[in-house]
Amino acid sequence: MLLELESAPAPKLLPRGIMRANVFRGPGRFGLEEKAIPEAGYGEAVIRVRLTTICGTDIHIVRGEYPVREGLTIGHEAVGVIHELGPGVEGYQVGQRVMTGAITPCGQCEPCLAGDRSQCGGPLGGWKLGNTMDGTQADYVLIPHAQANLASVPDALSDEQVILLTDIASTGFSAAERGNIRLGDTVAIFAQGPIGLCATVGARLSGAAEIIVVDPDINRLRMAEDFGATMALQSGPDVTERIRKLTKGRGVDTAIEALGTQETFENALRVLRPGGTLSSVGVYSGHLKVPLDAFGAGLGDHTIVTTLCPGGKERMHRLMRLVESHRVDLTPLLTHAFSLDDIGKAYDLFQSHGDGVLKLAIRVS
Amino acid sequence: MLLELESAPAPKLLPRGIMRANVFRGPGRFGLEEKAIPEAGYGEAVIRVRLTTICGTDIHIVRGEYPVREGLTIGHEAVGVIHELGPGVEGYQVGQRVMTGAITPCGQCEPCLAGDRSQCGGPLGGWKLGNTMDGTQADYVLIPHAQANLASVPDALSDEQVILLTDIASTGFSAAERGNIRLGDTVAIFAQGPIGLCATVGARLSGAAEIIVVDPDINRLRMAEDFGATMALQSGPDVTERIRKLTKGRGVDTAIEALGTQETFENALRVLRPGGTLSSVGVYSGHLKVPLDAFGAGLGDHTIVTTLCPGGKERMHRLMRLVESHRVDLTPLLTHAFSLDDIGKAYDLFQSHGDGVLKLAIRVS
Amino acid sequence: MLLELESAPAPKLLPRGIMRANVFRGPGRFGLEEKAIPEAGYGEAVIRVRLTTICGTDIHIVRGEYPVREGLTIGHEAVGVIHELGPGVEGYQVGQRVMTGAITPCGQCEPCLAGDRSQCGGPLGGWKLGNTMDGTQADYVLIPHAQANLASVPDALSDEQVILLTDIASTGFSAAERGNIRLGDTVAIFAQGPIGLCATVGARLSGAAEIIVVDPDINRLRMAEDFGATMALQSGPDVTERIRKLTKGRGVDTAIEALGTQETFENALRVLRPGGTLSSVGVYSGHLKVPLDAFGAGLGDHTIVTTLCPGGKERMHRLMRLVESHRVDLTPLLTHAFSLDDIGKAYDLFQSHGDGVLKLAIRVS
Amino acid sequence: MLLELESAPAPKLLPRGIMRANVFRGPGRFGLEEKAIPEAGYGEAVIRVRLTTICGTDIHIVRGEYPVREGLTIGHEAVGVIHELGPGVEGYQVGQRVMTGAITPCGQCEPCLAGDRSQCGGPLGGWKLGNTMDGTQADYVLIPHAQANLASVPDALSDEQVILLTDIASTGFSAAERGNIRLGDTVAIFAQGPIGLCATVGARLSGAAEIIVVDPDINRLRMAEDFGATMALQSGPDVTERIRKLTKGRGVDTAIEALGTQETFENALRVLRPGGTLSSVGVYSGHLKVPLDAFGAGLGDHTIVTTLCPGGKERMHRLMRLVESHRVDLTPLLTHAFSLDDIGKAYDLFQSHGDGVLKLAIRVS
Repeated sequence: MLLELESAPAPKLLPRGIMRANVFRGPGRFGLEEKAIPEAGYGEAVIRVRLTTICGTDIHIVRGEYPVREGLTIGHEAVGVIHELGPGVEGYQVGQRVMTGAITPCGQCEPCLAGDRSQCGGPLGGWKLGNTMDGTQADYVLIPHAQANLASVPDALSDEQVILLTDIASTGFSAAERGNIRLGDTVAIFAQGPIGLCATVGARLSGAAEIIVVDPDINRLRMAEDFGATMALQSGPDVTERIRKLTKGRGVDTAIEALGTQETFENALRVLRPGGTLSSVGVYSGHLKVPLDAFGAGLGDHTIVTTLCPGGKERMHRLMRLVESHRVDLTPLLTHAFSLDDIGKAYDLFQSHGDGVLKLAIRVS
Repeated sequence: MLLELESAPAPKLLPRGIMRANVFRGPGRFGLEEKAIPEAGYGEAVIRVRLTTICGTDIHIVRGEYPVREGLTIGHEAVGVIHELGPGVEGYQVGQRVMTGAITPCGQCEPCLAGDRSQCGGPLGGWKLGNTMDGTQADYVLIPHAQANLASVPDALSDEQVILLTDIASTGFSAAERGNIRLGDTVAIFAQGPIGLCATVGARLSGAAEIIVVDPDINRLRMAEDFGATMALQSGPDVTERIRKLTKGRGVDTAIEALGTQETFENALRVLRPGGTLSSVGVYSGHLKVPLDAFGAGLGDHTIVTTLCPGGKERMHRLMRLVESHRVDLTPLLTHAFSLDDIGKAYDLFQSHGDGVLKLAIRVS
Repeated sequence: MLLELESAPAPKLLPRGIMRANVFRGPGRFGLEEKAIPEAGYGEAVIRVRLTTICGTDIHIVRGEYPVREGLTIGHEAVGVIHELGPGVEGYQVGQRVMTGAITPCGQCEPCLAGDRSQCGGPLGGWKLGNTMDGTQADYVLIPHAQANLASVPDALSDEQVILLTDIASTGFSAAERGNIRLGDTVAIFAQGPIGLCATVGARLSGAAEIIVVDPDINRLRMAEDFGATMALQSGPDVTERIRKLTKGRGVDTAIEALGTQETFENALRVLRPGGTLSSVGVYSGHLKVPLDAFGAGLGDHTIVTTLCPGGKERMHRLMRLVESHRVDLTPLLTHAFSLDDIGKAYDLFQSHGDGVLKLAIRVS
Repeated sequence: MLLELESAPAPKLLPRGIMRANVFRGPGRFGLEEKAIPEAGYGEAVIRVRLTTICGTDIHIVRGEYPVREGLTIGHEAVGVIHELGPGVEGYQVGQRVMTGAITPCGQCEPCLAGDRSQCGGPLGGWKLGNTMDGTQADYVLIPHAQANLASVPDALSDEQVILLTDIASTGFSAAERGNIRLGDTVAIFAQGPIGLCATVGARLSGAAEIIVVDPDINRLRMAEDFGATMALQSGPDVTERIRKLTKGRGVDTAIEALGTQETFENALRVLRPGGTLSSVGVYSGHLKVPLDAFGAGLGDHTIVTTLCPGGKERMHRLMRLVESHRVDLTPLLTHAFSLDDIGKAYDLFQSHGDGVLKLAIRVS
């Protein structure tokens, strides 16, 4: 299913206590460096990374479009093995295989206790790895609030089967979960990149009858059909009109935005029925305008929800159960595989959008 | 898929304005009679019945266990064709194929406007057909509040594909919908009769990862597996213990009761995790006791919900979309077929629980 | 409490079957005309109006800013007495005092059955009176779907005590109800016109601890304090900064927009905490922009809800209970009173915003 | 407002590192002992207690009706001052005045991350203080998971103003919060002990129009009226009949059970309308039977929810805001005050139900 690595990871001849890490050096500059293996403080754990991947956000980081400090290790997705447990972390053991969500909430601050764990400690604060702390594209990574975030991976599941649950599946599913989908509803999903494809899976899991997906890329539309879309439409100026017709003028019950552009947001609103929900997981930049005609001038009983990827081990365990019970198989999204040593090539491919690339498996150990 | 009728329905040689109807004559006595074809008053419609079925409730009625007036036509499930539209019913035409839920809410009383449409006008008041009004086991049936209840059936769907949506599927699905199931949750369902089997379908549609079903009947357990159960357990004294083990002591997130006995209710509560939901659609008689040890002495943050079959055309349309999009196929539940003239034999078989009977298609026209 | 009318309504010397009605004749032109008293068809009722009022929307109509057909009777708020009941309307009697919401849903169409009654039959379709049907600023008004919409007024309540429940209170309260307010939450409300003031009442009824209101008008801010605001701020460029400080940088849990301008919408979003809800009941025109910095670039777990005034008799009864139990007294909003014959003067005053006018009682009979 | 203590707490002449603690010695035996002052480990804090109180649960403990280990310090309610902070607890300082809920969730286990914080770690596991750990009726108490549980008390609030938020108010309010109360609803509350009285406050805060309370004790009914009850009924065999009449046969929207007996539970169900919610916060013993006639034989669309007191600092802060903004004043419930040295007398009074006692303030320092 996965491309085989062309060569096994080379034996690491690093000094004791030293590891490889993919480090941001400034806009447009990044690459593998040697760093000290982190040590686990109170409530923390260190994971030896087995598999990681590259996210669209990482591309924004290396291009300097999303600011992080120079010297930061990039990456927020990982499956690995517990290397060290700090004091206060209980119920785990060194050597145990675990995964951790891209979002690592503390569980104990005001936002977490209010249920807004992705906003841990403040706006977007649940995203720490590869953002405000060293990330996962390295031999080892320090996991904060380990008690809340280390999710044990069942032996029956491979690293590849679970790696995408850490971020894009959790995000894509949440688009559906927050969309107020009822059994038999009609859902439209705008954009079928990795997150949009996971939203398609999520809409199906949530009981939608009709799932209409829109994307410019034929290959992605085909995969969407494999993932449960009942109607795949290529992007075009008449797409909202076509969806209106498909729903006999009624509009869709839930519209999911999975890209973060004015066009997809606007289209999502234009096909939404009065009383429906627009669930947005795209990251927007610049301006976002609400077309008031599609918004009933503010009287359409619409709901717009935005969601940052949910994390925490409880969610990770639930999502892994969906894989264990064969309800979800995300491995078709892993179109290519690289070793950590070749991560530069992996970034090149991912940025090129070439060769049908969707997500990359980066094998670390 | 269905047993063929041994003979086509005989040409009806009834006087003009007269029809056949299966009438309750008193405890233990019922059968076909001639009755006047009803006429549609304001807001009403008359349907020429094509297909109906027999419900467990009908058995209680003919036995005199559930009181209805003598002379009532039995039955509350029907697919048919509009025969007459009363004044004030708009957007339909005579000859149009329609179905109507077992529950026919008015949409305009206090409970309906509060969203409790099954309790239309008062306790359990949404159930009118075959209860407080003549029902569907007849050539024609009068539908009250037709504007709210006539659901157009798409040409692509057969009568057999939709007949079970009128009651048992709507009920079984609602058990899941009201059960607060999250993606990846574990659900246990007690009893796999027709409603329990539909609850299994509903749990799967709602995104459960693990669906554990319990029933004494091996054949029903097999069908449950076809319908999405991930673990089928034969009833027995150790069943709660086995479910506890399957969930590693955690208990299930949602427990569905689909029979209406002390044992199934109690077992449902015993396997439920703290904070979980017991969703009950069984009809209880006699006494119901809550085992306080399983109930955390009232401190377990449990939720118990009961649901009477939801109706109304909007729901029927949504459920039909699930059939149209091939997400749901309930026809395996229709194990036998009879003509209306043979409805007595149909009741005999249904009461006998023989020959693997689950639900019967009663062909009227 | 109310200004006394300077003269009692003059005896009407109209021909039998003829009534007075305030009619839209074209942009900028409207006034009293004689019209035939309507007659009640199936499911309808005719109400003899006792008290009505003027809404901001009516101003948009007479100015030609909101299009309605020429010849339409204006007005959508009324308390009156049943004059005639059409066939199919049961449980009422001629002479009974009733009120009806500005929104008169049928209860039987797809949107109504989905719970979106304000969107009855299609976008904004629940608003019929004074929009697509003759309205309430007349001696008599025809009420559609009377069974779902005639709410009996208890003898203990005056017309003035309940008239504002038909629209602005139902709207303002809904802003709070849809805002996900938890006990002890902090709510900010932008604009304290009649709807905003009712949102203040609604926020208090919903258990908010801190209610911060913003308006340019000192008198309205004072009334807001009487209605439950804990902090009243005059509009100004630093208002979001001041609210940030009041909440110690945390932001508010719920922000209510009650005007329909870019500025108030934007301010509402700027003071909203991650994970919070922006509940909008304003009517927007032109463009609406979402400030992405305040929106977490779409990752703030924000919810934006819009609401059109909810209607139906069940809601009206519930809101009347709040008045009966002395939890709500909206009569201070009725700053002026006129007779129907003087409705032209009433419009003049209402448009001038002079004399501290908030809402007008128009006495019809 | 409070009874003055007859004498100021005597200077403590205890050896360094030694404190007073009210210890359970076995069924019927308890009293002050000397114990070592606890020390804060990772993630823990030690609080010097200023004010505590006695809960009904404590009475069950000292009588041996609720099993705890011998030697345990009793009590789970406290306002105090931070004496020591363990490693990993940030954002606090020694000497800061804080309170902590009776329920002290970790925020990081599966149930906590699923939002079931009162069931932290397992059934009822959120209740640690005075149950599985030494409690608050002592000079010092160790607080587990301090980061999630230390709630800073504003200077403007006295110890007496906030002490009851730790348990009975949080519980009583939650009965209303979980009861699905809509604005204008009718609520009946069975039993008006301290928790029931707080449920009355909670129902009012939640927007109920009519709040019907039932209790045998006239004094408690009077206080209920002060707290917002609109109708106070003395217990009696006809109480459900009277409530049925008060609601014109409709039944109440929400029924709250605040005692934990068969009679109050049954009465709550008997007055509940179809589709309504029974919210239970009582602790039951022995058997609990569900009267099936009042339960619609399981078809009444009823919801029954049980709730264990919610905790965590975020909730405590929200509840304190209700006191700060003068929406809630619970001090009338503190009918008597004692010093810790006199805690034996306090237990005597509390158990006697004499002298109109509701809750006791136990002054520690």
